[in-house]
This record gives sequence, structure tokens and C-alpha cells, in this order.
Amino acid sequence: MELSSILLMLVVLFILARIGNRLFERFGVPGLIGEIIVGIIIANLVLWDGQTLIDMLNVSIPDSGILSDEYAVLYTFAELGVIFLLFSVGLETKVSELLSVGKSAMLVAILGVLLPFFFGFAYIQITEANYHHAMFLGAAMVATSVGITARVIKDMHLMEKRESKIIIGAAVIDDILGMIVLAIVKGTAGSDSASSLAIIKIIVEAVVFVLLAIAAARWLVPRLYAISEARAARYKERTGRKPEGFNMLILGVITCLLFSWFAENIGLAAIIGAFLAGMLFAEHAWETDMDRKVEAITSIFISYFFLYVGMQVDVSNVTLSVIGAAVIVIILAVISKLIGCGMGAKLGERDMDAAGASIIGIGMIPRGEVGIIVASIGLGITMSDGTTALSSELYTVIVLMAVATTIIAPPLLSKAYNKKYPHEFNVPSEDKVRSGRTGRGALTRPPVGIFS
Amino acid sequence: MELSSILLMLVVLFILARIGNRLFERFGVPGLIGEIIVGIIIANLVLWDGQTLIDMLNVSIPDSGILSDEYAVLYTFAELGVIFLLFSVGLETKVSELLSVGKSAMLVAILGVLLPFFFGFAYIQITEANYHHAMFLGAAMVATSVGITARVIKDMHLMEKRESKIIIGAAVIDDILGMIVLAIVKGTAGSDSASSLAIIKIIVEAVVFVLLAIAAARWLVPRLYAISEARAARYKERTGRKPEGFNMLILGVITCLLFSWFAENIGLAAIIGAFLAGMLFAEHAWETDMDRKVEAITSIFISYFFLYVGMQVDVSNVTLSVIGAAVIVIILAVISKLIGCGMGAKLGERDMDAAGASIIGIGMIPRGEVGIIVASIGLGITMSDGTTALSSELYTVIVLMAVATTIIAPPLLSKAYNKKYPHEFNVPSEDKVRSGRTGRGALTRPPVGIFS
Repeated sequence: MELSSILLMLVVLFILARIGNRLFERFGVPGLIGEIIVGIIIANLVLWDGQTLIDMLNVSIPDSGILSDEYAVLYTFAELGVIFLLFSVGLETKVSELLSVGKSAMLVAILGVLLPFFFGFAYIQITEANYHHAMFLGAAMVATSVGITARVIKDMHLMEKRESKIIIGAAVIDDILGMIVLAIVKGTAGSDSASSLAIIKIIVEAVVFVLLAIAAARWLVPRLYAISEARAARYKERTGRKPEGFNMLILGVITCLLFSWFAENIGLAAIIGAFLAGMLFAEHAWETDMDRKVEAITSIFISYFFLYVGMQVDVSNVTLSVIGAAVIVIILAVISKLIGCGMGAKLGERDMDAAGASIIGIGMIPRGEVGIIVASIGLGITMSDGTTALSSELYTVIVLMAVATTIIAPPLLSKAYNKKYPHEFNVPSEDKVRSGRTGRGALTRPPVGIFS
Repeated sequence: MELSSILLMLVVLFILARIGNRLFERFGVPGLIGEIIVGIIIANLVLWDGQTLIDMLNVSIPDSGILSDEYAVLYTFAELGVIFLLFSVGLETKVSELLSVGKSAMLVAILGVLLPFFFGFAYIQITEANYHHAMFLGAAMVATSVGITARVIKDMHLMEKRESKIIIGAAVIDDILGMIVLAIVKGTAGSDSASSLAIIKIIVEAVVFVLLAIAAARWLVPRLYAISEARAARYKERTGRKPEGFNMLILGVITCLLFSWFAENIGLAAIIGAFLAGMLFAEHAWETDMDRKVEAITSIFISYFFLYVGMQVDVSNVTLSVIGAAVIVIILAVISKLIGCGMGAKLGERDMDAAGASIIGIGMIPRGEVGIIVASIGLGITMSDGTTALSSELYTVIVLMAVATTIIAPPLLSKAYNKKYPHEFNVPSEDKVRSGRTGRGALTRPPVGIFS
């Protein structure tokens, strides 16, 4: 175990990701796309002696089951990045506000799941009539990758808009529905006879987990705060000093990791747990500066996540027929979310205008890592006739779809927000100035950097 | 690669470490000792079916060269913890102030290296007359583990005291001298004929690196700041807006990782690089709240470091003769630093009183991970006669010495500071209240916690 090679890997990838980020922001494109593209380049560009940069840094995607220590560290950093990002989104999501968009979010999520699944399923049944392939493509097209949309909205400081809240709420419900779809698809593909029981189990677990977390945020946490404040007041009256409480940052991070593990463990995605954990602290996070501290922690990890997403793309797999299929699937993936979620928004909100509905439709487009995870699960299941539940060509198509929707959505989303709220990005707030960012994100022309 | 098992490992260890921390703080002992003791317990207490908790979490110390993914992640978190801790100490060390204690720190460091080395060397030559064993024990007794002392001083908010600055300065010089001693010992133990050249090389590299970093902090960084501020002013005059600069936190973390890698790569310890990197940003860190953000990041990683130190202790190795030798070595380790560093402080500072000299002597006692690293290097070198350069008994003795000095020092240090500065820990400053800590650390009786 070499500390120096792990440090080298971490710092080289961090620097490259930040260069990609700054370069793209300079041209008005969200920085995370720069980070994904840097990931694609370092995984595919042969530099010397047949080796890519990730080969040299010992983090190439392993063919066999044996991972390098560096790969294990990079993978963990990437996952913690998206976990802390969703925790930080949760910290800004007050449960009362989430419940206020509940009906619309639910409609957006349900229609945004049904349409993409149907489109994906139908496309394969028409072209190759392979039931399992069709099921997996459908499942991979379902789940929105809320991480990418959340980063764009956070960078633009538009979290408080009604559309943003509907997107986040719908993405949470949609992820849960996506996990349920995945469980069903896995159940029908595997030979496990108890599969229908397992499917019912995951549905019940997911629903109970989310409802319990919402109930805790609504009733338990405010009560705990009231009790602890009463004790603190009594202590101060008695001694004249403030009592030493828990370090809230530590408590928050422990809750975040615990919920993430629990969600992962019952078959959901870790990020759902992280989001729910953040929601528990949302009402009081500002009191101890927890939101800004979590943001600092996130900023260390998150670039590794977007690099990692890019690194999954194997350019050599991309043939003409794969590109053809990918183009069709990308179009289906985009329009199915646009129509499904847009319709959901119109149905759910009486006064939703076209601009708002298109913000919501666009915000739900990115599939990102969730689609890739579904695809890799399908590739890993061997059927009784020896074939896998997903072909390797279709796997590449899904990866391209996931990356493309991730790249397409942020600039479209910036434009859509800019169209509906054109005048909100010129005056940096006091908070933005204090944190050294002007908060104009992807929306304005590139400013002149201090060192540039 | 299982995300769920990595998350479980991280969260279980974090919770246990924090319980140990709070429990010890409640009884007036610095929390890090609780974290180390939790580490010893989880590595040695068999819970079920011959397995300890670290076996169950898949992070037991590997006998062979193959590490689990979980172990790789834990190791990286532990190392990043101590790296960010030293970066954060560097952020509080203004180079002008370090230079102002330069002469005293130098004397404290040199005498604090010579005496322990001589004591350790003499003890083995008298008892077993084994030259290589003697050299390695001497080398293991040299280097102060500044991380532990730094955490105590930071927890007590006494960084600005002259004694604290001498300790930090001396520990930096002392670490460099320790690395040089280790290089010499390694050179004489191995059969490498170029060893004397290698030794000269590491001495030159170490000295040049430190001097360059100090020069950069003194002359280069202020100039860069002046240039960037002039540009920002011109930009603002032209456009009426503040320019978007670099995210200073990201820039700081990149510098920290880069310097740590570089130090590790030229044969120094990574933490020296991290400290020097922090020093570069010390003058301006508060402007962008960088110090508090780095502290938040450190608080996530650092507990894993102290757990990891504790996990190194194999209780089953501890026989009566090993205990006897350990007691003697621990006494030698303590008094050699007390006398050597105390004398150095008296020689260096005209008006140094006994209380101040004993603070400095005590502050330099902990050997921690540096001693353990030296010991493990000695255990890894096989001589031409088939024996290793360090016996496994002596290895256990050194680990016990490292842990014991680490445990002994913090309460003694709290007492020594409390004796010299008795009235400074009752009024929490505004900053401490804001961050949710009252800053009384190890010094007062345990306060009542908010949730307790």
C-alpha cells in the first residue's frame, strides 16, 4: 500500500477535473460537464506505450474482480461525493415545502417513469423482440439522476423556486419508483423463485423508509430540538454558561452515512438515504453553519464522481450501429421525460405555464449513474440459455444515453430557467460574495478570473 | 466492490470513535485518547467466533500483502486525516511568527533529537549489544508526532502562545531531522552501496524543500496576492462588479495534496508537506473562511487516524519481558524529550521560565505514528544473516512506546498549560460559541451536553 501513489492519483485527478470545470464554466457551460469530459478523455486517450492516464494512475476499470487500492479509494470518493451532494440538497429541502409540492411531484414522477419505460421496452421489442433486453433498457431509462440536476440548480442558487422543489421531490419519488422497477426486472430475469416476494419486500421497505423519514422530519426532530433547547436554557439559568452540545456537523455526517448505508442495504440507492438524512436537519442547519460546512466537504469529493461517470465510457466500443441505436434511444429518453414530466406538472399544478413545465421536463432528463448501474446489473445476469440479460452493445448504448442526457440537460436547464426568471442572476447576494462565488454559474458570460 | 460494506465500515468506526471521544472528554481527558483506546479495543477484543470487530468490518491488519478494499479506504482516510490536520495547523502558522521562534525551535529540535537517539541506542547496546536493533530503536525514539500535540493545542485554542509556536516549529524541524536519521539508519542497515549518496540526497532535498516553502510564504505569496488584488480592483472599476476568482478552498486543498505527495515522494513524511502548504495560505485564510472549512473537512477524517493508531496494538504480543522493556523505553522516551527539549528552550529563550520549558518538553513527548512507521521499516529489512533489522519483540515495544507517549502527553500538556495560563479557559469566545464548541477542551470539568 503506497501512500504516495494514492496521493498522486487523488491530486492529479482533482487538478484535471478542476481545469475541465473552469474551462467549461468560462464558456458558459456548467463545470460538471467539463469534469465528465475530462473523465472520458483520461480513460480513452492513449498517452504512451498503450497506456491511458488512468492506467498509469492505477485506476483503470478492472476487467477481472480484482481492484487496485487506488481504484477502491477513487470509487469511494466518487460515491461519497454524490452522497454528500444529496445530503447537502436535503439540507436545503424543508419537509413542509416538499409536502407542499407533493401532489405535483408525485404526478411528475409517475408519468416520468411510465413513459420512458414504455418507450424503451417498445423500441427493443420492435427491433429485436428480446423480452429481457427490452425490460432492462426500459428500467435503465426510468431513474432520473437527481445529482446532476441538483448541482445545476444549486450553482444557480435557484433552490427556492417552485419548479426546483417539484424537480427534487419528483426525482426522489422517481428514484424510488426506479428502484422498484429494477427490482421487478431483476426478479423476472433471475431464476429466483422467491422473486415476487422479494419485489413486494423492496416496495414495502422503500415506502416505509421514506414515510418514516418524512414523519421524523415533521414531528420527531422539532420535538427533540424543543427538548434540547429547554435543557440548554435551564443549564444556562443555573450556571450562567451555555452547555456544550453535540457537534452538529458530526451528528449530521453520521446520520447521512447511516441512512446511506441503510438505503443501499435494503436495495435502494445510497443517495436516497443521504437526501432523507439531510432533510432531517434542514430546519436548523443554518444555526451551526452546517450547510456551508457540508458544502465544503462536498467540494472535495464531488469532482471525483463526475470524473468517474466519464471514465465509464469506452470509446472503442462505439460502432456505427451502436451510434445509430444510441441516437434513437437518446431521443426517446429525452422526449419521454419531457412529455411525461411536463404533462405531470401541467396536471398537478393548475397555474403551471409552458416555461415552468419545460423546466421540470428538462430537469428530469439526466439519467447519469442510475442508468449505468441498471445496465451493469443486466450485464451481470446470465440466463439459462447462456446469454446475458443485456447485450454488451446495448450496455454501451445505455452508457452513451446516460452520459448524453447528463450532458444535454444542464445547458438546456440553464436556458429554461433563464427564460422564466431572466433578471435574477446579476446581483450576487451577500452570501455568495462571502463564499467567494458570484453565483452566476452557467448563466452569464464568463467573468475575468482573479489569477487569469 | 461493495459500497454498502464500505459505508458500514466508515459509519460504525466513526460512531465508535466519537463515543470514545465524548466519553473521555466528559472525564476531562482529551478525546483523541478515547479514539485511540477504541482502536485498541476493536482490534483486540474478540466478539464472536474468534472474530474482532475489525475482522467483521473487513479492515483487520493484513499479514500478507493483500489488502481488502475497506482497508485501503480506511488507511487513506486515516492518512488524509493527519494530512488535513497538519494543513490546518499550517493555516494558523504565520511564517513571520515561525521565524521569530526560529532559534529556540531549532535548539529544542536538535537537543530533542540527539538525547532520545542516544538513550535508545545506549539502552540496546547495553542490554543486547545488537548494533542494528540499537540504531532502529534510537531512530524510532526521535520524531515527535506533532499531530497529537497540535490537536490538543488547537482544542484548547492556545495556538497563539509562544510555547505553542516553539513546539510546532520544533516539531517541524524535528520531523525533518527524524527523517534524516531514518534515512541514515536505513542506509547503514541495507546493503545498498550508494547509501551515503542517498543520505546526502535526502538531507539536501529536505532542507531545500523547507527553505523554498518558507521563502515562498515570505516573498512569493504576498506578491501574488498584491497582483491579484490590483487586477480585481481594476476589474471592479471597469465593470462595477467583483471578479470571480479561484475557489480558494479548492486551491488550498490541491496545494496541500500536492505538497504532501511531494514530501512523501522525496522520502519525507507527507504531513511535513501538508504543514508547509498550510503556511503558504496562513496570512489570508480567514478572508475566505478557509480555516474553518478545512477544519470541517478535517473533522470528518481525523477520527479514523487515531482509531488507526490504536488498531496497530496487538495485545497478544505483550509478554512480561516485553512489558519490562517497554516500561524502560517509555521512561527513556519521556525523560529524554523533557530534558533535551526543556534544555533547548532554556538555552534558546532568555526569559523562559520552568513552567514554559516543561510545556515545551511535554509537548514534544508524543511519538505516535512516526515511531511506528520507523519500527515497521526496520521489521521489513532482512539482513545478510537472515535476521531482520528489528526484532518483533522490539517492534511491539516501540508500538507500546508510541501509544503510551501519545496517551501520556495530552493530559500532562493540558495541566502544564493550565498551570502557566490558569485563567484563559472560562470565557468562550464568540467564534467558539458560533461553531458550537465552548473550547474548554480537556481543561474544565465536563459540561452537561445538550442531548445528555
